[in-house]
Amino acid sequence: MTTVATLGSHCALQVLKGAKDEGLGTMLVCERRRESLYRRFGFIDRIVLVDRFEDVLGERCASELRGAPGGPAVLVPHGTLVARLSPDQMESIGSPIFGNRRMLRWESDRGLKEKLMREARLPLPASVPDPSNIRTLSIAKRQGAAGGRGYFLASSGADYRAKRAALVGRGVIREGEDLYVQEYARGVLAYLQFFHSPLRGDVEFFGADQRHESDIEGLARIPAGEQDAGWTPSFNVIGNSPLVLRESLLEEAYRMGERFVEASRRLVPPGMNGPFCIEGVYGADGRFTAFEFSARIVAGTNIYMDGSPYYSLLYGEPVSMGRRIAREIKEAAAAGSLDAVAA
Amino acid sequence: MTTVATLGSHCALQVLKGAKDEGLGTMLVCERRRESLYRRFGFIDRIVLVDRFEDVLGERCASELRGAPGGPAVLVPHGTLVARLSPDQMESIGSPIFGNRRMLRWESDRGLKEKLMREARLPLPASVPDPSNIRTLSIAKRQGAAGGRGYFLASSGADYRAKRAALVGRGVIREGEDLYVQEYARGVLAYLQFFHSPLRGDVEFFGADQRHESDIEGLARIPAGEQDAGWTPSFNVIGNSPLVLRESLLEEAYRMGERFVEASRRLVPPGMNGPFCIEGVYGADGRFTAFEFSARIVAGTNIYMDGSPYYSLLYGEPVSMGRRIAREIKEAAAAGSLDAVAA
Amino acid sequence: MTTVATLGSHCALQVLKGAKDEGLGTMLVCERRRESLYRRFGFIDRIVLVDRFEDVLGERCASELRGAPGGPAVLVPHGTLVARLSPDQMESIGSPIFGNRRMLRWESDRGLKEKLMREARLPLPASVPDPSNIRTLSIAKRQGAAGGRGYFLASSGADYRAKRAALVGRGVIREGEDLYVQEYARGVLAYLQFFHSPLRGDVEFFGADQRHESDIEGLARIPAGEQDAGWTPSFNVIGNSPLVLRESLLEEAYRMGERFVEASRRLVPPGMNGPFCIEGVYGADGRFTAFEFSARIVAGTNIYMDGSPYYSLLYGEPVSMGRRIAREIKEAAAAGSLDAVAA
Repeated sequence: MTTVATLGSHCALQVLKGAKDEGLGTMLVCERRRESLYRRFGFIDRIVLVDRFEDVLGERCASELRGAPGGPAVLVPHGTLVARLSPDQMESIGSPIFGNRRMLRWESDRGLKEKLMREARLPLPASVPDPSNIRTLSIAKRQGAAGGRGYFLASSGADYRAKRAALVGRGVIREGEDLYVQEYARGVLAYLQFFHSPLRGDVEFFGADQRHESDIEGLARIPAGEQDAGWTPSFNVIGNSPLVLRESLLEEAYRMGERFVEASRRLVPPGMNGPFCIEGVYGADGRFTAFEFSARIVAGTNIYMDGSPYYSLLYGEPVSMGRRIAREIKEAAAAGSLDAVAA
Repeated sequence: MTTVATLGSHCALQVLKGAKDEGLGTMLVCERRRESLYRRFGFIDRIVLVDRFEDVLGERCASELRGAPGGPAVLVPHGTLVARLSPDQMESIGSPIFGNRRMLRWESDRGLKEKLMREARLPLPASVPDPSNIRTLSIAKRQGAAGGRGYFLASSGADYRAKRAALVGRGVIREGEDLYVQEYARGVLAYLQFFHSPLRGDVEFFGADQRHESDIEGLARIPAGEQDAGWTPSFNVIGNSPLVLRESLLEEAYRMGERFVEASRRLVPPGMNGPFCIEGVYGADGRFTAFEFSARIVAGTNIYMDGSPYYSLLYGEPVSMGRRIAREIKEAAAAGSLDAVAA
Repeated sequence: MTTVATLGSHCALQVLKGAKDEGLGTMLVCERRRESLYRRFGFIDRIVLVDRFEDVLGERCASELRGAPGGPAVLVPHGTLVARLSPDQMESIGSPIFGNRRMLRWESDRGLKEKLMREARLPLPASVPDPSNIRTLSIAKRQGAAGGRGYFLASSGADYRAKRAALVGRGVIREGEDLYVQEYARGVLAYLQFFHSPLRGDVEFFGADQRHESDIEGLARIPAGEQDAGWTPSFNVIGNSPLVLRESLLEEAYRMGERFVEASRRLVPPGMNGPFCIEGVYGADGRFTAFEFSARIVAGTNIYMDGSPYYSLLYGEPVSMGRRIAREIKEAAAAGSLDAVAA
C-alpha cells in the first residue's frame, strides 16, 4: 500500500496513526533530538533521522521517500514544514505532496493571503498598512507560520513603536522585520477546519477548536488592578481545545469553506485540495471575521485524534483528519489517480 | 418504526443521528435557506422544506408529521422552537411533542421560570424588580430563548438606563421591552444537563458544558488598560465546550435535578419529562447558583454527539442526548405508551 | 480476579469503571450521604458504607478490603484520600495501595514537594519564604490537597497580610496556618498527566487538562472597570476541561515525567509508580514552569473517562487512566508480582 510520510512535529502522530488505521504504510522524517518520542508509537513503520527538518530537501530523504514500500511516499505538509521551509523550497520537493503545494506560498505571504481571502469574500478585519496610523486596538503579526510568537497588541502608533522596539531588543523579532498589522477583532475565537475532496467534489466541515496562547491567556486570571501596565502579552500557541458551534452557524461555515475553495481554484489552480482552516472570531452580532487561513492540516485537529463529532455525523464512525487524508490517498491510489490529490 | 422529527437548527443533527442510531425514522422541518446544509447528512430520511419555521404550525407540516412512516412523528422541541414560537403556538401543535410541552411556557416566561426554580429550592441570584435599584453588578436579560442577544451588565441604575438606551438605539432590543434583571453571579459557569425518564422513574445526569458568548469572551484577552470604557459586552451564544465536574459536586447536581422534576410535577403536571438543563455558576465557596433552566434539550449537548462520559458510566456504551431521547421513544412505543413520553 | 477499591469521591467512578472494563472486581468505600449517587452505577460490585472517609482506617473497612473476592483489594489512592488523611495515616493502612504510598507524604508536605521537584530539575517559580518580602505578583497556597480553597494572590507584603487576615476572619484558613508563597507564573495552565509502569519500565504521557477554579474564573467575564477592587479571587477547583498540547512540547513533557520518576527513585524508593501529574504553566516563551505535582491519579483525568487521545495512539483503543491502572494490576497479578505495583 501507499506510504504516508510527514515531518516529526505538529500533527505527525495523528497523520501517521490515521494512515495506519486505513491500512497504509507510514514514514516519519524525524530530527534526532526527538527520536525517543516517536519511537514510542508502534504505528510508525519507518523513521528517517535527520539533523534538521531542512534536510528533507536533501537526496537521502528524497531517496527514502521515493523508495517507500508501495511506491513513492505521499508527504503530508503541516505547520512545521511551512515554518521551516520557504515557499520555493516547498515547491522544489521531489515527492508528491498531499493537496496543492502552491497553496502554501499563499499561506506564507501576507499579501497573497489577504488577496485570496478577499477573492473568497471572507469578512476581514481592516489591515493597517502604516502602523503610525493605528487608531484602534490592533494586532501586529509576523509573516509565515510562526505559531504566534512575536505577535503583539497596540492601540496607537507610539504604542506600536515602543512595543516593537522592546521585542527587537529581546531578540523575538528582527530589526527591520516586516510586520503585518490589522485591527483587532474581538469575540469568540474559532478555528474552522475543513477538508476539500477533489475526488468527491465536496467540502466537508470537520470541526472547530480554540487556541491557547501564552502569555495572553494569563490575563484572564489576573485582576485588572494587578495587571502590570508594562506587560506586553504574547501569542505563542501552546495547545488547543474543542469547540462545538451553534448549529445555526454551520450553513455559513460551509459557505465560507466553499467560497474559499472556489477562489483558490481561480487564483491557484487546481485550488485548495485536502485539509484547510479558516481562522477568526465570532463577534457580538454572531458574524464571523476571518483573520487567517492555513492551507494544510492544522494542529487544532489533534483534539479530534479519536474522531470529530461532525465527522461521526458524516461517516457514522470516528474519523480523525489524519484518517480522512489517508482515506483520500487510498481512494485515489485505488483509482490510479494519486496525482489528483497529491502533486 | 416511529419517526422522530425536529426543526433544522440548534441540535437537529444530534437528535436525528441519535434517532437513526436507535433504528427510528427521521424527519426534518427545514427552512429553504438551510437545505444544502442538511442534505449532506445521510441519516435524515425526509426533509420538509418551509419558508420559515413558523410554518410548522400550518396544515402542510401537520399532515407530513401525521403521515410519517410508523405513525405520527414525535416532534423533539429545542431552543429554536422556543425562540420562534409563542407558548400558545407550541401548545397548539397537533403532533405529539417529546416531553411535556406545557413546560416550555415556564421556560419562556421569566415570572413562571423564577416561580418554578423557587419551588425546586434552587439557589437563585437575587432578582432586581426595579432597575433603578441596581446597587451591585447585575445582568439584564430578555424574555424567552434569545441566545443571549441583548443581555448586558450594569452596576447602577444610571448605568442600566444608558446601556439600555444604547441597545434600543441600535435595534438590539425594542423600545419598552420588558427586561429581567438579576444580580450577577460570578465563578465557574456550568450548564448541567439532565434527562428524566418517566418510564424508568429516574433522573440521569448527562453532562456539563460551558457556553462561549460574544463578545464578552473577548474581554479575557484584552489587557485592562486597553479595554475601551465605552464597550458594553454582549452575550450572544456562539458555541459550547466540555466541562467535567469535580466528583464531589455530583451528588448535589443529582439532587437539584430531582428537586426540579418533583417541583415541576406539582406545578406543571405531569412535570418535566425528557431532557432539561439547570444553568448557573459555581461560586467561590463551591456552591451552585442557578440563574436559568431550559425545559428541553440544550445545544450544549452537541459537544457530546459521540456520547457523554457520564452516560458511558451509566450505559456502558456511547450515548448522546439525541440517542437517549430516541431510546425513550422506542421503549415507550414498544410498550404502547408513547403518550407517557410525548403528549 | 483481584478487586480494586477506592473512596467514593474525586475519580472513583472512572477508577471502578476502568477496573470493571478490565474484568476486575470493584469495591467502594462510601460516605453514607453519597450512597444514593454511587448506587446508580452498575459496575460497582460492593459498597462499604462509612460515616466519614477517615473510617477507612478502622477494622471494619480493613476486614472488608482483606476479604475481597480474589484476595486483598488494591486501594487506589486519590486526592480525597490525601486531603482527608495525614501521611502517617495513609502509610498505616493495612491494604495494598496502588503505587508507592510514601510518595503521598512528598505531595502533602510543601518542603518535601519542593525538594523532589528540584531533584527532578523541574523549572520552579521562585518561592517566597517570608511573605513580607513579596515584591511581584505571588500566590499563597495551603499545605496538602485542599483543592485550591484558601489560595489567594498578593502583590506586596501589606496586600498579603490584609488578604490573609480577611480569609482567617471568614474561617477559610486557620489563624497561624502555615501558607506557602511562590511567585505567580502566568501563561497557559497545563496539568500534565503521566503513568509510570514498573512492570514495563516506562513512562507514558496520558494527556493534559485545564482546571476551572472559582471564583478566579469569573474575572475573565467582568470588564476591568467593573471589577470590585475589594474582591479577592479564590481558587476552588470546580471542574476540568481537555487540552491538547502542541506536538513539539511532547518531547520535553516526556523528559519531565522521566526525570520526575528518576528523582523519586532516588529520594523515595522504589519511586513514583502508577499515575502522577506535573502541574504548571507554559509561559510566553513556550517553556514550562512547574508549580505542583500530584503523586497519584488526578481528577483532571475524568475528562478522558472514555479514553485519552494520547492513549489511543499508544494502545490503539480507548483507555482511561482508571483502566490503565486496572491493566497494570491485572498484569502484575497474573505475574504473581502485585507487590511491584502496590505496596
